[in-house]
Amino acid sequence: MSANPEIPAEKTAGRIVGNLDPDLAARLKKDGDGLVAAVVQQHDTREVLMLGWMDEEALHRTLTTGRVTFWSRSRAEYWRKGDTSGHTQTVKGVSLDCDGDALLVMVEQIGPACHTGTPTCFTGRELEAVVGDDEREGE
Amino acid sequence: MSANPEIPAEKTAGRIVGNLDPDLAARLKKDGDGLVAAVVQQHDTREVLMLGWMDEEALHRTLTTGRVTFWSRSRAEYWRKGDTSGHTQTVKGVSLDCDGDALLVMVEQIGPACHTGTPTCFTGRELEAVVGDDEREGE
Repeated sequence: MSANPEIPAEKTAGRIVGNLDPDLAARLKKDGDGLVAAVVQQHDTREVLMLGWMDEEALHRTLTTGRVTFWSRSRAEYWRKGDTSGHTQTVKGVSLDCDGDALLVMVEQIGPACHTGTPTCFTGRELEAVVGDDEREGE
Repeated sequence: MSANPEIPAEKTAGRIVGNLDPDLAARLKKDGDGLVAAVVQQHDTREVLMLGWMDEEALHRTLTTGRVTFWSRSRAEYWRKGDTSGHTQTVKGVSLDCDGDALLVMVEQIGPACHTGTPTCFTGRELEAVVGDDEREGE
């Protein structure tokens, strides 16, 4: 059911394999491009800053270096957040969700997280939405 | 560069198209399966509860009904959170990120968010990680 199609060669060029702990690698449920989603959250304010993508090597680097590293889908290369912008993300903790397809990375963000200069990649980008009624009773 | 391969027919069976506002649909940067990632966050505590996947129809339903709806990749069907478990997510707000491949959905979560019974899908699932040194000076 969940077998991935083979990843197109042009998407794996430049990728490094074999460094991530094999037990952890086996727990990852990667998409068709060999990636898992990484939600990045400011550790103290709990603001969701952005969502990036990690392959095994990007996760390995994130877990072992104290700096968040993604796989850039658009540039097809490793991207250590802040190397160009100075807006680094220092790792405070990493969790893998129940089914292995998403990471939650707690960070200390320096400067704006978004390349557009907004504090987060979601700031000022609200969609029109019907707000639901709470169904919680009492309290 | 970002053209998606055609989505395999078995992944689109059951999908509904055409209801989402076309201007918004055009802003979505969908993956090879026609999906965007949806980060779900409890609106008051700012806990990140889970990550799900939405196609255009799931987003349309989420924006117009007050209840969060995903596309279940494993079951290949729409999944209105809480219909089976009772652990509903009421919509408080939705944002689309700068490059259109991730949604942030603010909710009121009833009960545990995770199907395993933990409060969030990340609870108790920390990975071993090197914690980085803060580079922020002063303050």
